[in-house]
Amino acid sequence: MIAEIITIGSEITTGSILNTHSKYISSKLLELGIETYYHTSVDDNKKRVSDIINIALQRADIIITTGGLGPTDDDLTKEVISETLGLELISDKDIEDNIRNIFSKLDKTMPTNNLKQAFKPEGSQFLKNSIGTAPGIFLSKDNKKIIMLPGPSKEMELMFNNEVIPLIHEDYNIIIKSVNIIGIGESQLEMKIKDLINKDSDIIIATFAKEGEVEVKIIGKGKNKDIIENKINNVIKILKQRFHEYIYGFDNIPIEIIVFNLLKEINYKIGFCESCTGGLISSRFSRIPGVSQVFDRSIVTYSNNAKMEELGVNSNTLEKYGAVSEETAIEMANGLLNRDNLDLSLSVTGIAGPDGGTEEKPIGLVYLCISTKDKSIPIKCNFNGNRESIQNKTATRAFFELRKFLLNK
Amino acid sequence: MIAEIITIGSEITTGSILNTHSKYISSKLLELGIETYYHTSVDDNKKRVSDIINIALQRADIIITTGGLGPTDDDLTKEVISETLGLELISDKDIEDNIRNIFSKLDKTMPTNNLKQAFKPEGSQFLKNSIGTAPGIFLSKDNKKIIMLPGPSKEMELMFNNEVIPLIHEDYNIIIKSVNIIGIGESQLEMKIKDLINKDSDIIIATFAKEGEVEVKIIGKGKNKDIIENKINNVIKILKQRFHEYIYGFDNIPIEIIVFNLLKEINYKIGFCESCTGGLISSRFSRIPGVSQVFDRSIVTYSNNAKMEELGVNSNTLEKYGAVSEETAIEMANGLLNRDNLDLSLSVTGIAGPDGGTEEKPIGLVYLCISTKDKSIPIKCNFNGNRESIQNKTATRAFFELRKFLLNK
Repeated sequence: MIAEIITIGSEITTGSILNTHSKYISSKLLELGIETYYHTSVDDNKKRVSDIINIALQRADIIITTGGLGPTDDDLTKEVISETLGLELISDKDIEDNIRNIFSKLDKTMPTNNLKQAFKPEGSQFLKNSIGTAPGIFLSKDNKKIIMLPGPSKEMELMFNNEVIPLIHEDYNIIIKSVNIIGIGESQLEMKIKDLINKDSDIIIATFAKEGEVEVKIIGKGKNKDIIENKINNVIKILKQRFHEYIYGFDNIPIEIIVFNLLKEINYKIGFCESCTGGLISSRFSRIPGVSQVFDRSIVTYSNNAKMEELGVNSNTLEKYGAVSEETAIEMANGLLNRDNLDLSLSVTGIAGPDGGTEEKPIGLVYLCISTKDKSIPIKCNFNGNRESIQNKTATRAFFELRKFLLNK
Repeated sequence: MIAEIITIGSEITTGSILNTHSKYISSKLLELGIETYYHTSVDDNKKRVSDIINIALQRADIIITTGGLGPTDDDLTKEVISETLGLELISDKDIEDNIRNIFSKLDKTMPTNNLKQAFKPEGSQFLKNSIGTAPGIFLSKDNKKIIMLPGPSKEMELMFNNEVIPLIHEDYNIIIKSVNIIGIGESQLEMKIKDLINKDSDIIIATFAKEGEVEVKIIGKGKNKDIIENKINNVIKILKQRFHEYIYGFDNIPIEIIVFNLLKEINYKIGFCESCTGGLISSRFSRIPGVSQVFDRSIVTYSNNAKMEELGVNSNTLEKYGAVSEETAIEMANGLLNRDNLDLSLSVTGIAGPDGGTEEKPIGLVYLCISTKDKSIPIKCNFNGNRESIQNKTATRAFFELRKFLLNK
């Protein structure tokens, strides 16, 4: 089955935003055993969108569009596709009510053009949008599958995974497992698994570098599920032997969620004190639903003054060793731990740049400290990259060290 | 003049790399007054590349390809294009020598397939590649301009700027301005500017929704720079009249940077206290280099206990009005303001979900409060979306309200 991905929107063809949808969808399709031969982007123009659809119908079996499902006039995807295929647009009562509800909940008056979103081509089915107003559409006609997804990435990705995959999955087994690694670079890692890659034609092993971590994706394909699973598990066994201390998890469960679950198990409350990350560790942790079970508070002490006032860091320590030092990191973590009902604290102090680096304290130097009532463990790190990248890598490493600490308890 | 950008390579269509070339080239073309209507990506397949070229020749005046110019067998761009246009491939002596030189300089023996790069279609001209071995190609035939650029981004971008721009630049101007808006939805906004859209064929007005904000892009085209600028400024003037209280800036300067600059001007130090955003406001602010000039500290009080201990929120207030209430927001902001050297504080407390929503306090209900020594201004908001989206919208709105406050001081 051949796929074409069509992204619709002048914001793409004028180059004002990057087309990340085509990459996302084609890599997902590949995992399902569906090959993508074409990516097409076109501006918000009725005639040109229609031409694009006609071309795609001639060369692809499955056509996935993103964008142009919203309420505004330049949202014309389903209108054009219906017209191109000679189908009527029919309004769906449930969706109509749903849209009205969303607005009444927000006690806002609904602009009438929002009702546009309740229309779908005859014979098609809506795809649920659990976080936005624009539903997707699935249409099957003359052995062609046409899938229309909304433009916002979060809505598109959620809909693809929850609604689209079950509709297009085929009787062919593709099993994917991911091994998640922190603390070793992608190129170094790749060299150490060269012997595994291309060893077995049914098994694809690929590495993907993310900020501060690497994902090793193992894709197995074949008719027999058990055989594939065995092969994959063998690869994972070898990876565990080679990279044991670097592997933090599997199948892309975020490191902060792993830490969250470990804390829940032992019923520990944690607090963070951050300097150079400015609240990033805390905000990443707070993305987790129900985090309040283990997360009590965090303090961002950006100035030295704040470090002293909020965490009781000693002025002599700051003078003698500097704000970016092991000693300061330890005093920060211990200072926070003095608060009530905290079992564990993590502190971060470092130089994110672009300024503030020196010969012996370069940009990217970061000290972490993990403290409990009975011990403090300082950790020194050096990261490269720009300010944002150093902050991201610091946060990721902080969670990685917390996981290690909690497992060794 | 209409452009189509064609990126060739299976690494793109399989989703293993992101297609950044099309964005780069189309935004550059726009600055030159050339509109891109189509982006096409295709895998390394002779037949399909040929089909793609034929389609492009029918609908675009200028075709820019990237990739497939290298020495290996799956580099087939110029071979296919020559064949499609019925042109011979001829070897160029100078380039041939140049390639030999590069290898002798590296004193490496040259793989013979490198000489492939010395061939070009008859009647075409080479484009100099100052940092790689694969030259680009410029071909003009039947009023169509065809430009072939190498795949590596650095080579492609350098070649585009140094070699391509002089060849395609036209006596034609494009000016783009953006108006950035917070607090009014895209659909509502568009209904209120319907009369401006399509009013003047030289002016394109498009709205782009981002999380919690909307960008209105105004693109002017024409021979006379002053006339375009006047037309754009007139549109902006009207937008200012209609949406004055919602416009926070122009040309996509992030709202937090606008707040940062306003604080610098009056030499104010700010602190944040966050509950439902869990440090997001603080971490977004801390992305800004040099933020320490205006940012002192921030406190994430996730538990009620922390709200009382860190910010001195009254237990009666929490009991009587709840943690998510105007009263608590005010006490949080004032509590933080008691710290030394803070001129301004912003507090956030709300329900980000997925749990914790009730009839009269639904998910998405958020209270902000901005406090200075002499006054406290609470603000009530309702946001929709999932947990992450509510947190993002809250942070964006917080900066928006800070800007408003600082301007009205």
